[in-house]
Amino acid sequence: MQRPRLNPLVEFLPAFVPFVGPEAQERARGRPFAARLGANESVFGPSPKAVAAMEAAAAGNWMYADPESYELRCAIAQFHGVGVDNVVIGEGIDGLLGLTVKLAAEPGSVIVSSDGTYPTFNFHVAAGGGRLVRVPYRDDRQDLEVLLAAAVREDAHILYVATPDNPMGSMAPSAELKQLIARLPDGVLLCLDEAYCDTAPPKDLLPIDVTNPQVLRLRTFSKAYGLAGARVGYALGEAALIRQFEKIRNHYGINRVGQIGALVAIEDQAYLAEVVRQIARARARIGRIALDQGLAPIISGANFVTIDCGGDGTFAKGVLDGLIARDVFVRMPSVAPLNRCIRVSCGRDEDLAVFAAALPVALAEARG
Amino acid sequence: MQRPRLNPLVEFLPAFVPFVGPEAQERARGRPFAARLGANESVFGPSPKAVAAMEAAAAGNWMYADPESYELRCAIAQFHGVGVDNVVIGEGIDGLLGLTVKLAAEPGSVIVSSDGTYPTFNFHVAAGGGRLVRVPYRDDRQDLEVLLAAAVREDAHILYVATPDNPMGSMAPSAELKQLIARLPDGVLLCLDEAYCDTAPPKDLLPIDVTNPQVLRLRTFSKAYGLAGARVGYALGEAALIRQFEKIRNHYGINRVGQIGALVAIEDQAYLAEVVRQIARARARIGRIALDQGLAPIISGANFVTIDCGGDGTFAKGVLDGLIARDVFVRMPSVAPLNRCIRVSCGRDEDLAVFAAALPVALAEARG
Repeated sequence: MQRPRLNPLVEFLPAFVPFVGPEAQERARGRPFAARLGANESVFGPSPKAVAAMEAAAAGNWMYADPESYELRCAIAQFHGVGVDNVVIGEGIDGLLGLTVKLAAEPGSVIVSSDGTYPTFNFHVAAGGGRLVRVPYRDDRQDLEVLLAAAVREDAHILYVATPDNPMGSMAPSAELKQLIARLPDGVLLCLDEAYCDTAPPKDLLPIDVTNPQVLRLRTFSKAYGLAGARVGYALGEAALIRQFEKIRNHYGINRVGQIGALVAIEDQAYLAEVVRQIARARARIGRIALDQGLAPIISGANFVTIDCGGDGTFAKGVLDGLIARDVFVRMPSVAPLNRCIRVSCGRDEDLAVFAAALPVALAEARG
Repeated sequence: MQRPRLNPLVEFLPAFVPFVGPEAQERARGRPFAARLGANESVFGPSPKAVAAMEAAAAGNWMYADPESYELRCAIAQFHGVGVDNVVIGEGIDGLLGLTVKLAAEPGSVIVSSDGTYPTFNFHVAAGGGRLVRVPYRDDRQDLEVLLAAAVREDAHILYVATPDNPMGSMAPSAELKQLIARLPDGVLLCLDEAYCDTAPPKDLLPIDVTNPQVLRLRTFSKAYGLAGARVGYALGEAALIRQFEKIRNHYGINRVGQIGALVAIEDQAYLAEVVRQIARARARIGRIALDQGLAPIISGANFVTIDCGGDGTFAKGVLDGLIARDVFVRMPSVAPLNRCIRVSCGRDEDLAVFAAALPVALAEARG
């Protein structure tokens, strides 16, 4: 039979899907989850002003969104004290990661990341034919020293660092990041994924500096802003670098309702501050729930807490399965030694009560 | 100064933007358009049931959409009488075109298209390093015979055909398409862009056949369904071909509100039928408005009518500028000889009244 020719780069990729969604799990289980704490969404929801704006925008969804996202870029630029030319909008950080790989790497280019961090980045590296060099975590943190050494040794095109990190929630301290940036070799792009930065201690965040073309900062409305469904992320960087995205991005990729929701959300910082307080409270409560069971929560700057279950990956998977069987949607890291942990998103009191009730049973089962 | 290395394929691309949005034009003009008839949106709007569903979904936008778009794919599959594995969802047809180029072409691969057709496709070909071979239109229609000959001669990886075509609105008759498909050489993928098919005479459409791996059908909720802002398109094809998209698509690229809106919209075929009637009425009215001015409308199966202004590209550009100066947002083809035309989207009576009033003045100016 005749067939189209496929790009061998794609044809021979494994059919790897970064995450199975909770909906697919619910379909397989035949019943819904009682607590949705696995995807680091914000169950606290977006700003009520953003909800109202999105409701009002629904009837206008016959119009394409402004392909330049001009008003949104202006609001983001103003918020960060940068120029509108320092901002590009993408379909979530995921979309921007794909573009970044396309922009700064070729097939065969080395891209350095940490072993166990955000798998969607690896997905984009594979699809772009990049060669991923992974460095182990040290003490549940990304090892900046070894990451930099690998980037130098391998003549890397991209160095990926996330802070707060996913899946551990740990921070790359701003002082160490500054040193890393000062020592970046020529030709390397530091892709700094700050999806979770809105819930981190501000002192731990690097000041925004859009003069350095080697540093790209990625942010999103999916986490603390509570707009995961809107698919709106952005990159901050030097104007000439940001301009390159115009050549490859899907200009009409941003949806109108999400664009409008994000604009209102970033302008409602009072609501964001309140959600950040609730997330901090939830982090503390998840920590207590873990400690009550003799487990060790890892200090998190993100909107989730990763809990060391005290065994190996098989044991943690047993705990995870027990939680899922009790209708608690959570996830776990996929790579050792991180996979001794489970990862629990911040939730409302009622969500965490479901988790707190299920955890001891899941633990007992996994131990028995 | 140190800089990141860029992929030369991207670095040396021209900073070409397929379309400037009406919002950018409004910002430059300092005032809004009175009639938005330039982007082939459906000013008739989406199904009221879809609007209600999107309004109801706004508060739930803290959740990611189902990355498998399972319910939407089931509804689309049922509507077309195919399997759910024959359907992949993308961020509009634009997003799917980018993925199709990535999937079926490599840098240097030849991709055959028509000179003057949908420029976003060319944008994706350029970004993928493909070599675009363009065939002229014949009698304002894509020339299937010459397109096929070019695909054979050039050993093309992809052959792009749109029906109804944009920017002319003309159809590739189903009988001719059938012949084309029967004669496709091995190794070629026919990328059949059917963005405008919902408003075309059903007899002119090719029956759905998902057994042929060489034919990919692209459809969208952006046109007749009135959901351009939702960014939801889909591809229909052989299951093994569709499965390849899983390796490269942005799994979390679809927004939740749009996904829900599209699901309700495809289930409200009564509303779609009513809109299609209104679009047909508007096509006829645009035709009369053109004829009243001595201009020749081109028979259209799409939700727009392209009007031959009777001169060259400079003259048509003059007419276009006159319309824009009178607050009528319309567009025109960019390539000769198509650029002797302007393209007017179907609108409500009040939108077309604005156009009808502005056209004689714009024509007089362009002539004078």
